Amino acid sequence: MNQHRAPIYEKLQEYVKSSPVSFHIPGHKRRAWSQEGWLKDWFLGDVTEITGMDDLHAPEEMIKEAEELAAECFGAEQTFFLVGGSTSGNLALILSVCQPGDVVLVDRHAHKSVLHGLMLARAKAVFLPVAIDPMSGLPMGTSPAILARALERYPVAKAVVLTCPNYYGIGPDIEAIASLSRNASIPLLIDEAHGVHFGFHEKLPMSAIRQGADAVVQSAHKMGGGLTMGGFLHLRGDRVDPARVRQCLSMVQTSSPSYPILASLDAFRKHWAADGSRMIQQGLDAVLSFRLSMQALPRFAVTDMVQHALLQSGDAWKRKVDPFKLYIFDRTGELDGYTLQARLEQHNCMIEMADPRGVLLVFTYASTKEDAQQLFGAFGKCAEISLIDRETRPIGNEQQVGMDDAKNAQSLSDGEGWSPSELESASSISDPVDLADWQLPSQTELVPLEQAKGRKMAEMIIPYPPGIPLVCKGERLTDQLWMQAIRLRDAGARFQGTEDSKLASVRVIVEGLQEIGERR
Amino acid sequence: MNQHRAPIYEKLQEYVKSSPVSFHIPGHKRRAWSQEGWLKDWFLGDVTEITGMDDLHAPEEMIKEAEELAAECFGAEQTFFLVGGSTSGNLALILSVCQPGDVVLVDRHAHKSVLHGLMLARAKAVFLPVAIDPMSGLPMGTSPAILARALERYPVAKAVVLTCPNYYGIGPDIEAIASLSRNASIPLLIDEAHGVHFGFHEKLPMSAIRQGADAVVQSAHKMGGGLTMGGFLHLRGDRVDPARVRQCLSMVQTSSPSYPILASLDAFRKHWAADGSRMIQQGLDAVLSFRLSMQALPRFAVTDMVQHALLQSGDAWKRKVDPFKLYIFDRTGELDGYTLQARLEQHNCMIEMADPRGVLLVFTYASTKEDAQQLFGAFGKCAEISLIDRETRPIGNEQQVGMDDAKNAQSLSDGEGWSPSELESASSISDPVDLADWQLPSQTELVPLEQAKGRKMAEMIIPYPPGIPLVCKGERLTDQLWMQAIRLRDAGARFQGTEDSKLASVRVIVEGLQEIGERR
Repeated sequence: MNQHRAPIYEKLQEYVKSSPVSFHIPGHKRRAWSQEGWLKDWFLGDVTEITGMDDLHAPEEMIKEAEELAAECFGAEQTFFLVGGSTSGNLALILSVCQPGDVVLVDRHAHKSVLHGLMLARAKAVFLPVAIDPMSGLPMGTSPAILARALERYPVAKAVVLTCPNYYGIGPDIEAIASLSRNASIPLLIDEAHGVHFGFHEKLPMSAIRQGADAVVQSAHKMGGGLTMGGFLHLRGDRVDPARVRQCLSMVQTSSPSYPILASLDAFRKHWAADGSRMIQQGLDAVLSFRLSMQALPRFAVTDMVQHALLQSGDAWKRKVDPFKLYIFDRTGELDGYTLQARLEQHNCMIEMADPRGVLLVFTYASTKEDAQQLFGAFGKCAEISLIDRETRPIGNEQQVGMDDAKNAQSLSDGEGWSPSELESASSISDPVDLADWQLPSQTELVPLEQAKGRKMAEMIIPYPPGIPLVCKGERLTDQLWMQAIRLRDAGARFQGTEDSKLASVRVIVEGLQEIGERR
Repeated sequence: MNQHRAPIYEKLQEYVKSSPVSFHIPGHKRRAWSQEGWLKDWFLGDVTEITGMDDLHAPEEMIKEAEELAAECFGAEQTFFLVGGSTSGNLALILSVCQPGDVVLVDRHAHKSVLHGLMLARAKAVFLPVAIDPMSGLPMGTSPAILARALERYPVAKAVVLTCPNYYGIGPDIEAIASLSRNASIPLLIDEAHGVHFGFHEKLPMSAIRQGADAVVQSAHKMGGGLTMGGFLHLRGDRVDPARVRQCLSMVQTSSPSYPILASLDAFRKHWAADGSRMIQQGLDAVLSFRLSMQALPRFAVTDMVQHALLQSGDAWKRKVDPFKLYIFDRTGELDGYTLQARLEQHNCMIEMADPRGVLLVFTYASTKEDAQQLFGAFGKCAEISLIDRETRPIGNEQQVGMDDAKNAQSLSDGEGWSPSELESASSISDPVDLADWQLPSQTELVPLEQAKGRKMAEMIIPYPPGIPLVCKGERLTDQLWMQAIRLRDAGARFQGTEDSKLASVRVIVEGLQEIGERR
């Protein structure tokens, strides 16, 4: 196919340049009430399903052609454009492969949209543990070994749903995982929201769809060049039914998609098909130049270290690590993540995320060496401001840094009340968690954590960092999990997902009433 | 509150004008790969939840303020911004008010997103009949009398979900309906996707939220000035739990909303709060001038007629009719809707919809008298081309036109194999339809319509026009419905919703297997 074509983009281009009079929706008639160009121009291309504009939910013309071009470009057999973000793709995929009561194997650090999909599908989730990098304390995803154990224990499982790469750009060996799910003849669904660029450059990991996944969801805006809310859903093989996926997508996605977003998916694919590798190389050069400069500021640990740690470990060479994601922390522990963020932003560098320990920075194909220089300059300023900087002994080679880091991560994490080993044990393969209870809202109560032992959770407890749920909605707070939660809280950890972020109390399900609900 | 403020829009404005360096998502770094201005500028405001940009799913800053301003402006107690269209609002509302097995009263011409919401919630739907205007053949929505009957018959009902106005701009008396649901102490949810402008001008119907609805979903882009996929969800009273609605919205909406869409909601509200009535008056002037000119082309019936018919009937003065929606057909029957559409588009007038009989045109606040002139000119051309035009006797006054129309509509509709009376009977109050079966995909079969009597449908049969489902997914094809479907098909009616648009065969549920599914 001619990858230099972009049917939706071109058609919209035509439309914007022509000036038909509109007697149809949308109401703004492409006449913005705002004269500010940046928003005004959104209106020019904001059309709907009129003659020639095809229909996202039953494509026959330009959208069909654009989806076929994308499928070829990404190595899929069929591709669906998403306008509801990866969220809509994850919801539709899960709804399309399971029926109420089905057991699904899912990793502990799945995005909430995966859990929401399982809730809407009324599936039972079996959570797979996620390995923690001992040096950086970052989650590295699950492993083939763990999946193999889970498949043995739950032969009834109907699907495997994994995140790869995760928010930090790290993921497991998909090739090995795909062969396991293939042998079990169940579909492997990959949430690749953070990996749309994988496979477009030799220095990047291969994409999941090319490594044997049955279905893959990608955000186009996160690591690619699409507009926010744009995404792709790729299918390959016969373990997922395309007609079923289309039906579920039409249930969870709007019947009035945004054409600017669709056009951005189309044009983005065209540009990367033609020139992706070169565009990505430019971004990689920016990352490299930044890393090199940072050697002059040894007090800051850059998560080259993760890669380093992975290279030491056994399956490292197969694990996916995204060179565009950098997690950086102050080895002296003097500047916590939030302070670093504030200082970097003072110098006009906006970052992705800060946690108590460090900051997460995202480079992409669109990053430049000038960006890298400005960021390095900002870190330099952070160091200057800090008085004890000069006390930090300079560190020569990676190995030392690595060991230093390991010690450091350990002490820091202890300081924050969690350690890799703890998290490992906390997130061992779970019993099946019935996620069908969510629809019984009024039958929950807020109780002191002390009194919550053995109760069924009405909310998730997510110690943060690293943001891996300790216990999921609908899951029982076993003695072990309960003690863990108390230890983490008393050590001053922060929590997401709970009404009370201090975890003095948690919301649990009132089971007497809930059974009434279940009897209905 | 200061309705002249637009917090999201202003903040984004600032951000676009400033030039921070991005080390965060989105990947395009606001640098478009396209140099075309109309697309390039989309990227400038396409940011995400970085410092100062708040969070749609847990708003505390600019989004919270913008939602509060919108609530005040629309007369709601709480308003949620939508980025997944009215679809996301309908899904979330229905999920938030019902539990599996609950009975919900819903009108026959509900948007598919309402049916999808009921499917995801696993509710049981009781369909309320929709009145047909005898003159134009257009659906006019359900009525208080019908709802009263349904509430008597189904005291267990947990909610009422109605469309008002419908696609043609017509809706029932919400005030009367609201008092009925209030007496039954169940929430009234209104899909007002086509009525965001209601209540902003004395010549427009009042909005549902101001007439006593508990929850209302509006598209901002259809009849207002927001970008496509933008919408509002309004709450009032205590029969719908806002916390629950927020939870369900976070399930069905993306975790990465589009900020340009959010900003368009914010700025649209600001402009209409300040100047809406004047902006709408301009659009009404355009409609009026068009209608006046059309008196010179009497062969074309303009759905002033609907309004006319309504004025004759009893509750007309309370029914809602949107003067911005015009349904026009050729009284001579020579030019069908599709031919009209083609001819109008030849003259650069893009229309909303054509059906075998006529065309639907949408004016809005953004329409001008120049638009109206161009449209009139195009109709003039359509008339010229047609030879038998001169044979059409000119018609003087509305009354005559009305009568003529009535005869005409009758004969036309007979000609197309459906008549108002038929549709009325076809859509009498239904038995509860269990919508939980949809998740059992493989257990359906395609059978000739002749053999489908008594079977449970796996697809909807929607005779079109007027697009009111004859039978819904999961509903049993009773003798009466089955005969109706055969009569309609043999009379040459067109169908939506079915795999086979000719209705030679229909897809039904294989019930033996399905029970296995239900036993799970």
